Amino acid sequence: MLGKRHGYGKVAHAPHNLTLSIIGASLLWVGWFGFNAGSAAGATANAGMAMLVTQIATAAAAMAWMFAEWLARGKPSVLGIVSGAVGGLVAITPAAGFVDPMGALIIGLVAGIVCFVASTTVKNALGYDDSLDVWGVHGVGGVVGAILTGVFAKAAIAGKDAPLGLIDGNAGQVLTQIYGVVITIIFTAVVSLIILKIIDWTIGLRVDEATERDGLDLNLHGETVQ
Amino acid sequence: MLGKRHGYGKVAHAPHNLTLSIIGASLLWVGWFGFNAGSAAGATANAGMAMLVTQIATAAAAMAWMFAEWLARGKPSVLGIVSGAVGGLVAITPAAGFVDPMGALIIGLVAGIVCFVASTTVKNALGYDDSLDVWGVHGVGGVVGAILTGVFAKAAIAGKDAPLGLIDGNAGQVLTQIYGVVITIIFTAVVSLIILKIIDWTIGLRVDEATERDGLDLNLHGETVQ
Amino acid sequence: MLGKRHGYGKVAHAPHNLTLSIIGASLLWVGWFGFNAGSAAGATANAGMAMLVTQIATAAAAMAWMFAEWLARGKPSVLGIVSGAVGGLVAITPAAGFVDPMGALIIGLVAGIVCFVASTTVKNALGYDDSLDVWGVHGVGGVVGAILTGVFAKAAIAGKDAPLGLIDGNAGQVLTQIYGVVITIIFTAVVSLIILKIIDWTIGLRVDEATERDGLDLNLHGETVQ
Repeated sequence: MLGKRHGYGKVAHAPHNLTLSIIGASLLWVGWFGFNAGSAAGATANAGMAMLVTQIATAAAAMAWMFAEWLARGKPSVLGIVSGAVGGLVAITPAAGFVDPMGALIIGLVAGIVCFVASTTVKNALGYDDSLDVWGVHGVGGVVGAILTGVFAKAAIAGKDAPLGLIDGNAGQVLTQIYGVVITIIFTAVVSLIILKIIDWTIGLRVDEATERDGLDLNLHGETVQ
Repeated sequence: MLGKRHGYGKVAHAPHNLTLSIIGASLLWVGWFGFNAGSAAGATANAGMAMLVTQIATAAAAMAWMFAEWLARGKPSVLGIVSGAVGGLVAITPAAGFVDPMGALIIGLVAGIVCFVASTTVKNALGYDDSLDVWGVHGVGGVVGAILTGVFAKAAIAGKDAPLGLIDGNAGQVLTQIYGVVITIIFTAVVSLIILKIIDWTIGLRVDEATERDGLDLNLHGETVQ
Repeated sequence: MLGKRHGYGKVAHAPHNLTLSIIGASLLWVGWFGFNAGSAAGATANAGMAMLVTQIATAAAAMAWMFAEWLARGKPSVLGIVSGAVGGLVAITPAAGFVDPMGALIIGLVAGIVCFVASTTVKNALGYDDSLDVWGVHGVGGVVGAILTGVFAKAAIAGKDAPLGLIDGNAGQVLTQIYGVVITIIFTAVVSLIILKIIDWTIGLRVDEATERDGLDLNLHGETVQ
């Protein structure tokens, strides 16, 4: 809808302050415990298990991305560890409260590797501009987590009687999860398209080129980073 | 007591590292949940409500300051959102555990707007030097919160029998809160004056001009930021 | 095993970004509450006491280091406060859940002073290179905490019947703690030596001089801080 940033692919956009990336991911990681474990709305055993699997999947995804990058590019990077951790947090969220530690470990490992491939090989092949890898990390990580929840959800962990996921003997749940993912993608795409079109016809979707070159911080907010 | 910084109003004092302001406000916001909800000294429903209204008031104050600034100056700013959030945290603190979500929303909106006016229009009119806007955000936010607690406190939220605030049918509580605020201001002013005078007569209240120009970090602590 | 960094003691290694040191120590301090209080595995009174003594000891150690540095060098520093806080966190950890607030206060004060001496006078006398003061803060802080746990542990705090520490009337616990510390040091030294030797014989323990001068970030990870 927007098109790429000016000079994308031609000019290097200085992308990261690594120290701040690590601080941001650390705050996110800690806050996510409140998100996943807090959803139990009580200091219960279920909240404890949700917190434990969040930690396991996130750490596994961080390691998986790091090793995948090491193999593919020859060097492990801090940014890769941080990106993998975020992918793991996203992937474990639908599953927290439903899967056991072994399920969380597998979800994390798969999410780390798949998000790495999505944010590098697939991104380059498709040629879109996504400066924060929202699609590759949050989008793909969410899809991986939603589908694998259908595989690893266990009645014993969630405190239910009927079997939940594939390994519980309820193979149909995987299809249900895929169905939910597809509907979510279609719904989100259509509604986003409508919202973006309305913005485009009213206040406009993209700043003019001069404003973009000077930076939005300065033009729209009268601020600089420092 | 101290007077202004040298050059205040004439020389621009480079004021903010915006990234660090956001990190600081984020840490404060999360920590404040421990402060307000933790005061219940237990993982109880009352602690949950204190946490919920803290979030609502803080978010409302951040938005209120942003929109007030947008209207008054033509541009919303990140620093405004951050300042409003801190004002909201201060304002909801006396009320947390006593007000419901609607009361918290109103306290936050009022705090955001009043703190914005206090830290800009009123500050400029009075001409004092307050580099961290301690008076405009913390002082005014605290006064707003203390008085509005007298309006919105509800016996049903606090688990009491007798009516608490104005909307509970106990209009006198507003006067009690104002009385408390006035006594606190007088007490604080007198005691601070005594402490500052004692420091002034003994070790001195302000560094000499050369030390101030070079910076206190270097002279008194032998350190620089980086 | 490694030897010193090139130029250590001759060239100044720009050591700290103070702002990031404070942010890091703040995150560590908050996270440590989860570590010490969370070990009770429940929102219990014992968890509350573990959290309280963690706060007391950490604050006391931060102040103790600051005053020790002020006396020894003439200036208090932010880095000293931060270093003392980390030393206090390490020292209170074995004791949290076993000591009362007064015991925590003494553990913190002793840890702050001893870690300061270890990281300055002792470090300079021994001439080793420890850019993060891992030995002076974490190692020495841990030893101080482990031994003083044997002094201040109380059956009443831990919910036990038999007396625990020296002030409970069980002087032998101090010797038991010292015994544990000595065994831990010997075990760690031997196992670390074996691991380091294996690494040295296989992939090598230290990068070559050119890589070290350019920096490991760039050479091994293809990254720079900013």
